[in-house]
Amino acid sequence: MRLDIAYDGTDFSGWARQPARRTVCGVLEDTLSLVLRLDVRLTVAGRTDAGVHATGQVAHVDLPADVDLGVLVPRLARALPADVRVGAATPVPPEFDARFTALRRHYAYRVCDHQASADPLRRNHVVTWPRPLDLGALNAASALLLGEHDFVAFCKRREGATTIRELQRLDWSRAADGTLEARVSADAFCHSMVRSLVGALLAVGEGRKPPGWPAGMLTATERPSAITVAPAHGLALVGVDYPADAELAARAELTRRVRTL
Amino acid sequence: MRLDIAYDGTDFSGWARQPARRTVCGVLEDTLSLVLRLDVRLTVAGRTDAGVHATGQVAHVDLPADVDLGVLVPRLARALPADVRVGAATPVPPEFDARFTALRRHYAYRVCDHQASADPLRRNHVVTWPRPLDLGALNAASALLLGEHDFVAFCKRREGATTIRELQRLDWSRAADGTLEARVSADAFCHSMVRSLVGALLAVGEGRKPPGWPAGMLTATERPSAITVAPAHGLALVGVDYPADAELAARAELTRRVRTL
Repeated sequence: MRLDIAYDGTDFSGWARQPARRTVCGVLEDTLSLVLRLDVRLTVAGRTDAGVHATGQVAHVDLPADVDLGVLVPRLARALPADVRVGAATPVPPEFDARFTALRRHYAYRVCDHQASADPLRRNHVVTWPRPLDLGALNAASALLLGEHDFVAFCKRREGATTIRELQRLDWSRAADGTLEARVSADAFCHSMVRSLVGALLAVGEGRKPPGWPAGMLTATERPSAITVAPAHGLALVGVDYPADAELAARAELTRRVRTL
Repeated sequence: MRLDIAYDGTDFSGWARQPARRTVCGVLEDTLSLVLRLDVRLTVAGRTDAGVHATGQVAHVDLPADVDLGVLVPRLARALPADVRVGAATPVPPEFDARFTALRRHYAYRVCDHQASADPLRRNHVVTWPRPLDLGALNAASALLLGEHDFVAFCKRREGATTIRELQRLDWSRAADGTLEARVSADAFCHSMVRSLVGALLAVGEGRKPPGWPAGMLTATERPSAITVAPAHGLALVGVDYPADAELAARAELTRRVRTL
């Protein structure tokens, strides 16, 4: 089963379960286990950090065939706290894996660079920046980061996994109310990558660094101390792309054939 | 001086100062007094209740002529907590009074009637309603309330002041994301009037009462117990209208002439 999930990260210690902490995964697994009277373990597309929000998070769970998905969503809506919602629960082919079959993750990062007009109703979702930011400089520096690179300079630590990622989208726009929004898409992200990229770009936006500075760090072999990780509360996971069901089945068949060769 | 103010009402015990409570008026007066080194007292257009938000609140304060309004707004932005903002401080004619020269107050009330898809990021600003609401019934019942009436049935208590008000706008729309929004405008509102009107209308919207029921209570002489006051956190003061400066001066002159007759 696929779950489409939204949450306000403010009062959560991130996605991943931690002892004695309120985590999104902990609250969701506990509530699902209670509602379904089953021991439920979720696999998620993006393990967001403490304070990071999601409007388009995706997880999957393997359930017995007799679970009625039609009543599950309204029952979860009543049982879950108001800062996390399961908007949809849909059957998926057995090949579907929220983490490993995801093709792309999409994030948004929001900043208001005019302190007096920062919207108090969005203070937990938009970072207030004390100095003006130049949209042209932000976009010039962002464009130089696109493509496949080793993003080790923008990763909090090596996790054994690769830090080579394909950054497919990174651009900024300014809304009518003055809020700046960065849209960031890649096949996958390593830990704190979006916030490190945004942190480096904000230094360019406020004129402290030239537009070529963030891309110049792509040749670094470890994370330079000059990069400040941007605050968590401006970040939201807004969507995850998956292959169509038919393509999933074909991929799984291909994997089986390769294994039997 | 006129102040244009926005706040998230979640962590405030309403506008009005109360001993040992965190109130919008208290925080603003204390911060202004600190920044200006003057004892500041504010007069406000709408004394909102605990939990009610504002994006278009207006207050005024009389200040010595040598106060530099140009530096006041950025200084306030640095000194105020993130849940209240002063977006503008502008000089006004001496006749301007945020409360008594206001022509109209505009409120918005927001409800989501689909529990599973309620946006967790807006949970403090949009009320989640557990049953579906009918937009046509809400608007039919609302239209019957327009005009000048004695709204005593929708007022929490007589405050000595009149409960005769002119309801100039009351209509509902459904946004693309499914959220219902009521827009409510009147020359003035008595205490808890918007939330009592909305509470009565929601009973119509979910089919418990006929569309004529709220307007039928306009002939009541006190507040019927059948009206439930709708939750505070769905409500926001979105704007206040004032006469143009020239008209303000003309009105003041007229008042002076009437007094000397």
